[in-house]
Amino acid sequence: MAQFIQATQALRRKLGAGIVSIEKAALYAASFDSSKISFLPEAVILPRKEADIGVALALANKYGVPVTTRGRGTTLMGSAAPVQGGWVIDMLRLKRIAIDGDAGMAHVQAGATNASIQRAAEAQGWFYPPDPSSREFCTIGGNIACNAGGMHGGKYGVTRDFIVALRGFLPTGEYVEWGTATKKFSAGYNLRDLWIGSEGMLGVVTGAVLKLIPQPAARWTLLTSFRDEKQALEAALALFRQRVQPAICEFLDRESVVCAERATKTTVFPGQAGRPVILLELAGGAAEVREQKAVVLAWAKAHALAFRAAKDRAEAEQLWAVRRKCSGAMFELGDAKLNEDIVVPMKNYVKFITFLAGLKRSSGLPIPTFGHLADGNLHVNIMYHRADKAESRAAEHAVEKLMRTVVSLGGAISGEHGIGLAKTPFLRIQHRPAQVKAMQAVKQALDPRGILNPGKMFEPVRIWKFPKLAIHLPWDHK
Amino acid sequence: MAQFIQATQALRRKLGAGIVSIEKAALYAASFDSSKISFLPEAVILPRKEADIGVALALANKYGVPVTTRGRGTTLMGSAAPVQGGWVIDMLRLKRIAIDGDAGMAHVQAGATNASIQRAAEAQGWFYPPDPSSREFCTIGGNIACNAGGMHGGKYGVTRDFIVALRGFLPTGEYVEWGTATKKFSAGYNLRDLWIGSEGMLGVVTGAVLKLIPQPAARWTLLTSFRDEKQALEAALALFRQRVQPAICEFLDRESVVCAERATKTTVFPGQAGRPVILLELAGGAAEVREQKAVVLAWAKAHALAFRAAKDRAEAEQLWAVRRKCSGAMFELGDAKLNEDIVVPMKNYVKFITFLAGLKRSSGLPIPTFGHLADGNLHVNIMYHRADKAESRAAEHAVEKLMRTVVSLGGAISGEHGIGLAKTPFLRIQHRPAQVKAMQAVKQALDPRGILNPGKMFEPVRIWKFPKLAIHLPWDHK
Repeated sequence: MAQFIQATQALRRKLGAGIVSIEKAALYAASFDSSKISFLPEAVILPRKEADIGVALALANKYGVPVTTRGRGTTLMGSAAPVQGGWVIDMLRLKRIAIDGDAGMAHVQAGATNASIQRAAEAQGWFYPPDPSSREFCTIGGNIACNAGGMHGGKYGVTRDFIVALRGFLPTGEYVEWGTATKKFSAGYNLRDLWIGSEGMLGVVTGAVLKLIPQPAARWTLLTSFRDEKQALEAALALFRQRVQPAICEFLDRESVVCAERATKTTVFPGQAGRPVILLELAGGAAEVREQKAVVLAWAKAHALAFRAAKDRAEAEQLWAVRRKCSGAMFELGDAKLNEDIVVPMKNYVKFITFLAGLKRSSGLPIPTFGHLADGNLHVNIMYHRADKAESRAAEHAVEKLMRTVVSLGGAISGEHGIGLAKTPFLRIQHRPAQVKAMQAVKQALDPRGILNPGKMFEPVRIWKFPKLAIHLPWDHK
Repeated sequence: MAQFIQATQALRRKLGAGIVSIEKAALYAASFDSSKISFLPEAVILPRKEADIGVALALANKYGVPVTTRGRGTTLMGSAAPVQGGWVIDMLRLKRIAIDGDAGMAHVQAGATNASIQRAAEAQGWFYPPDPSSREFCTIGGNIACNAGGMHGGKYGVTRDFIVALRGFLPTGEYVEWGTATKKFSAGYNLRDLWIGSEGMLGVVTGAVLKLIPQPAARWTLLTSFRDEKQALEAALALFRQRVQPAICEFLDRESVVCAERATKTTVFPGQAGRPVILLELAGGAAEVREQKAVVLAWAKAHALAFRAAKDRAEAEQLWAVRRKCSGAMFELGDAKLNEDIVVPMKNYVKFITFLAGLKRSSGLPIPTFGHLADGNLHVNIMYHRADKAESRAAEHAVEKLMRTVVSLGGAISGEHGIGLAKTPFLRIQHRPAQVKAMQAVKQALDPRGILNPGKMFEPVRIWKFPKLAIHLPWDHK
């Protein structure tokens, strides 16, 4: 600890108090992310330029100070919580965005928000598809750290599919660039993609070059309802079988629909109260969308109980508003939520939904589930009351059973949130011992002093046992 | 050496002589790739099942035997040459392909050829875009090893953009799986992508799950000619500026066109002999292609000297045949070719082509250049006569100048071939010392005994000094 204090003093001398804060309010604000578990750091670094980070890391590496990098802290996984104290690097000042309209690329700093990048791209006729639901708040650096996805994953891909180049610093403070601002690059090991999804444990990303795609000229939205979850999922598979790739294909199970209806005191689909729904969006050239629309309408006639197309963007926006409300509405069912962003291969959708029905029964808990059917990424929300010991235990058992089932069905324990602290107990369900060992060897090779985001990923932590801050964050639903 | 013999004996006892060959003909065939530099191994392993590879690697790791994995050996870079002897694993028996038509994924073994995967996908209405020109011969394992691209890279991406999951073995012989057969996966470090492009140095890929996209219903091909290279490249930029993404956009400079015309005794574009050309293909839904066609025709009228659309697939095929011939035809200009698959950012196209004109003059060598304008990946072919010392020296100087210029323009020394042996002298032009050090640390972490494809990537080798086999390979042009 004495050496941490010495290190922090050295850092303040080098970068100045305008960049290195040790004020209580700053330390508190940097002590937690959206998992709301607080660990106080010794200092918060707010770099004005990217090189400041190299200076800080060189010192941290010398003194062995833990360093946690954060954007807005919207992660639910505890990935940005400084569990071992030390320094927090807050990237929010580094938020430059420049669109190369000719090449169709965005040059961004890590602290730029996802939504601001989307808007800058759109202004020049380009489209950046990855869209976490926290997109107005979350930064591209955070998106890169957990390989964030969103609703467009099935057709367009996730963050890693749009990263052309990264720049930043090794834990030693050495500046590195992975890849060039070109769509092809095959020179040396692919450390760019190794950094993507490594949750700030292998290096600090300060900037990125993103690939953009032409902005779709037309969009068309359709709301469909089904008798039950099985029918809905089978219908979705029938649609994909026709080689139609909707830009978005969102599913809400009955529990999610009922939640949203109770909370908003409206019906998701008038006349279809309480039924599971699929909300579809086609996107592309005007002619392309017209062509696909005919196929989708024929499909809806054959498979859905009822369907309703949005007449215009305003009506489409109303339909999407319902989808967005369901997540917050779930707190009617419990004051705690385990939001598990699992992924299931399409061929096992029906098996999975059958398992889930059983899990709801056996746990006695509400488990409203919604998600992205075009890529199998379902958000399973295990709701319980924190103060109720029996419910807490049931939730803990349910989440482990869920993870084991997902992996046995060939799926992933996380599709877009990452591991952080929250999923550490499940890492070894997903990965064989040799795989974890290889990951740890890579960590040791690139960060031999173990200063970057220590305590994450590998050591099992039961995050739900920690006290949780009773605060409301701007991006919290409701 | 004595311990290598002991190791090989142990290997033959375990796997049998039907899998482990020490016959001269087999050793010779495995001694070289398309770089035609021969290094005899001690044994060739032809696994019948993937687990055989685990057995071989466990032994190799124990005895410290170098192991080089190969598919068909189409690489020009020497990446599959067993420079330090040892064992060669030949993947050609492992070539199973299964298409999951519902999910739009291909489950393949590493020895399956690119073209056989494309055909299997197409038979079910799906499309696998990466298409190296050796696609009838090269294997998906090789494509993964060098992150192969092809003509479709600009619109659709390269190999890494289509890899959903990999399986295979660590150098210790331990079986691993990176990713699941799902489009989202965010659980643990991304070693899948670290393996992609690592040229068989970090693990042995035995199988992959590939993402497919819907087969385009329509295609349309247009041949355009221009006064000179500068006009052609500026015109291409003007097209991209309209947010049109051709599926293919191939450029041939005057020297490439003249070569093809001399070799085939026909004119590439009747009435436009000797002029640089751009060959465009639009692909997508019928309506989408119709829509884009109008934009492209208007563009051609405004920018091209002349243009000609193919009336049907047969005529389109004729146009593409010319493009394919230009590479082989270059051997009219010299008996040796340095085929450099460099990448230049679009904004620097004109600067680069001006540099290239100067390089042709200053070197006194023919440097026919063609390539993929939608992603900046140009194939620069430095032609010389091997026996002519002055020409050889000029070629050597020219290639180094080329690499330095490419990097100074923000580009890449390789877009799709990788480093292997041939580009080792240039790795440090592309990468800072800290970057190379990080790559070597990763290599050391995952392959501590250094058995996988040793001698590649990091140690500079002047491959053109080695004697070359005077053989003709099935995929050699001409």
